[in-house]
Amino acid sequence: MKYNEIPTKIYLEENEMPKAYYNVRADMKNKPAPLLNPGTKKPFTEEELCGVFCKELVKQELDDDTPYIPIPEEVQRYYKMYRPSPLFRAYNLEKKLGTPAHIYYKFEGNNTSGSHKLNSALAQAYYAKQQGLKGVTTETGAGQWGTALSMACSYFDLDCKVFMVKTSYEQKPYRREVMKVYGASVTPSPSMETQVGQKILQEHPGTGGSLGCAISEAVEVAVTNEGYRYALGSVLNQVLLHQSIVGLEAKAALDKIGVKADMIIGCAGGGSNLGGLISPFMGEKLRGEADYEIIAVEPQSCPSFTRGVFAYDYADTGRICPLVKMYTLGSDFIPAPDHAGGLRFHGMSGILSQLYHDGYMKAVAVKQTDVFAAAEQFSRAEGILPAPESSHAIKVAIDEALKCKETGEEKKILFGLTGTGYFDLYAFEKFHNGEMQDNIPTDEELESFRKNLPDIKE
Amino acid sequence: MKYNEIPTKIYLEENEMPKAYYNVRADMKNKPAPLLNPGTKKPFTEEELCGVFCKELVKQELDDDTPYIPIPEEVQRYYKMYRPSPLFRAYNLEKKLGTPAHIYYKFEGNNTSGSHKLNSALAQAYYAKQQGLKGVTTETGAGQWGTALSMACSYFDLDCKVFMVKTSYEQKPYRREVMKVYGASVTPSPSMETQVGQKILQEHPGTGGSLGCAISEAVEVAVTNEGYRYALGSVLNQVLLHQSIVGLEAKAALDKIGVKADMIIGCAGGGSNLGGLISPFMGEKLRGEADYEIIAVEPQSCPSFTRGVFAYDYADTGRICPLVKMYTLGSDFIPAPDHAGGLRFHGMSGILSQLYHDGYMKAVAVKQTDVFAAAEQFSRAEGILPAPESSHAIKVAIDEALKCKETGEEKKILFGLTGTGYFDLYAFEKFHNGEMQDNIPTDEELESFRKNLPDIKE
Repeated sequence: MKYNEIPTKIYLEENEMPKAYYNVRADMKNKPAPLLNPGTKKPFTEEELCGVFCKELVKQELDDDTPYIPIPEEVQRYYKMYRPSPLFRAYNLEKKLGTPAHIYYKFEGNNTSGSHKLNSALAQAYYAKQQGLKGVTTETGAGQWGTALSMACSYFDLDCKVFMVKTSYEQKPYRREVMKVYGASVTPSPSMETQVGQKILQEHPGTGGSLGCAISEAVEVAVTNEGYRYALGSVLNQVLLHQSIVGLEAKAALDKIGVKADMIIGCAGGGSNLGGLISPFMGEKLRGEADYEIIAVEPQSCPSFTRGVFAYDYADTGRICPLVKMYTLGSDFIPAPDHAGGLRFHGMSGILSQLYHDGYMKAVAVKQTDVFAAAEQFSRAEGILPAPESSHAIKVAIDEALKCKETGEEKKILFGLTGTGYFDLYAFEKFHNGEMQDNIPTDEELESFRKNLPDIKE
Repeated sequence: MKYNEIPTKIYLEENEMPKAYYNVRADMKNKPAPLLNPGTKKPFTEEELCGVFCKELVKQELDDDTPYIPIPEEVQRYYKMYRPSPLFRAYNLEKKLGTPAHIYYKFEGNNTSGSHKLNSALAQAYYAKQQGLKGVTTETGAGQWGTALSMACSYFDLDCKVFMVKTSYEQKPYRREVMKVYGASVTPSPSMETQVGQKILQEHPGTGGSLGCAISEAVEVAVTNEGYRYALGSVLNQVLLHQSIVGLEAKAALDKIGVKADMIIGCAGGGSNLGGLISPFMGEKLRGEADYEIIAVEPQSCPSFTRGVFAYDYADTGRICPLVKMYTLGSDFIPAPDHAGGLRFHGMSGILSQLYHDGYMKAVAVKQTDVFAAAEQFSRAEGILPAPESSHAIKVAIDEALKCKETGEEKKILFGLTGTGYFDLYAFEKFHNGEMQDNIPTDEELESFRKNLPDIKE
């Protein structure tokens, strides 16, 4: 196929969609370190994890060996309601940049949850239903994960209890209402419904809550109520496994038009998007079959990869969640209130951390104001209003395309466009009014949080 | 193809997309009546209209004879950034309803403007650029049309001046910011930038404005500034022509899977969506080649078809726009503040009005609370959060599918899902809180507005 014959959107047929998830751990020589129990500091047993998560998901979490894990047929059926997602050739952006580079992006925003989160939510809801559970619990900050899980639960007639950080609950009433449309119950956290919530409210009356606190409440409800388990939207191995559908589809679409990517770029918060997008490409790289330049993009305000350390740390500020060996800024680190809420996490997926540590990918940290300028440039050329998170990848894709303009290289760049910016227009307003700031922690600040890392003997 | 082999989403290939718009007027025996000049009450001449609209669009507006009008190649290229839009088979909804009917819907919400409006905006911006204009002006209420035109103008590097009803400007800051992302200037109306705005502000200081007033300001700026013309998102013949791409794609997709629709359902405000969706089906019906049951759905709060009269009337409350022969409630009629803003128009497209008058289609009026209940039922089965406007069609599609459940008929129902409800969550909140009312005008109220219809001798 000649390049000028490549359509603007490359869709797979429904029968060309992946029928199995790809588990990148199977091809990793150095496996991600096991999750530790925060109480005993020993690796979590399967049995312990089954008290919190569905059985089948625990199996997936612990499976470092099976390369392909079948996608249940019913989950495939629900994927077909919004997948395959389109792979775009950014013809207009290339033209406006005047670059010889070919830019492709995989767009995950064309479903009502507005992001890739639905890919894992559907799998998690399915396995909960299969296990005969009544429902699942979770926490949500900005609301994308909560919306995705609410949608998935509505399909499977499962109860969905979402603990939403109180400040978000009050500031983002529309996110709350979307979840209610799908029948979820949404509780502002901290709440009087849990012991941990009651304790926090007693100690900090009037608090606006935090993600760490909402996680604690969701986990408590899951473990103390018959027929409930907890669901999480990022960081975990199982989530990256489900999100591999993004990369598998992207690779199949590129293969279909005979294009090999040179460079793959994704934003990185907890790692669900980046891990999913790169997985099949990383697999080829790990097996020595092909080489790709893989770039993780993170905010300078929360630079886990570029300025963190590789160590065991708590996944939450409340320190009740498993310890993960990962690149971390310390679980006490509170990122500045930047607008890419999905990237404001002190740590990183254990899988991606190991791959980065072993030199299979690079990382770049970018400034918030540059990210919004790139988002606007992209919107005016390609139409789609991107989420601030996704715009981190856009910023670096544009930078790389402009480098090609200087060198004359016809690089094939693929980036992940994880979602839409519909719910982030407050941030665009700040940007338009010149009120947006770049918040970059000092070395001293980072050092102070690093001191509180748990002391784990490996 | 067997029914159980029909995919969930039927996509056309890009090379199967329509290359010409279909002009349903060419097949109408009774043509829509000409637009009248509000000053002289005589039909508008081509020259007069060219002072307000682009030349090529005026030609399209007045062309009652050419059945197919080529879509410019550059417009086709921009369509490919978000089209073909998917035709969905509503398998999950059918299952939850337990109906033997087959339900299909054409979804136009997968572009950042969130609705079908972009289809006409792109064509209008293209012709403005071709004519060498600097920019276009328009008004917007809820903001969908303003967003669509802003996007189209950003692609063609055209200036876009949007007058946004002041109450919307203040209550919907996010809609305003989306338009700014695309580089449009957004002015709250009434403003001091126009003579008509100054006059209104003098007479009604502190007014929140109205769509009629915003139209007047946009037209004034278009006709008094060198290199500007005015653009409108509904009602006009040219808009229905551009929107025919919706119906052409839907029909091509159904043809591809060998399905003939029995019934086609669309919501009707000014007519842009319904007119576009039904056009090729209506063409077959007009030529006697096939029969279809075609249903327009409108709100009981603004029942132009079902309780209006077929007469010449002003298209705007300010009485500066052309007179259209249409089903109307009277240009003084102020619909109740229902949440389907796009259906709150006192009149109707001249084309659809003539077709309805001649018996080629039916109309049904539905209650707001029933519409939101249907929207929620649909969301939980099909995932997509629909706009309140689109939900009018959903309500009737569900009703018809339930009739099939009683009769056992395997009817093929097609409806138009015009857009997403992302910007209407305030309305869903009212619905969830039991605060939503049904506002139905009395016969006396309707009669009082009918008295003020202009007296036109035909």
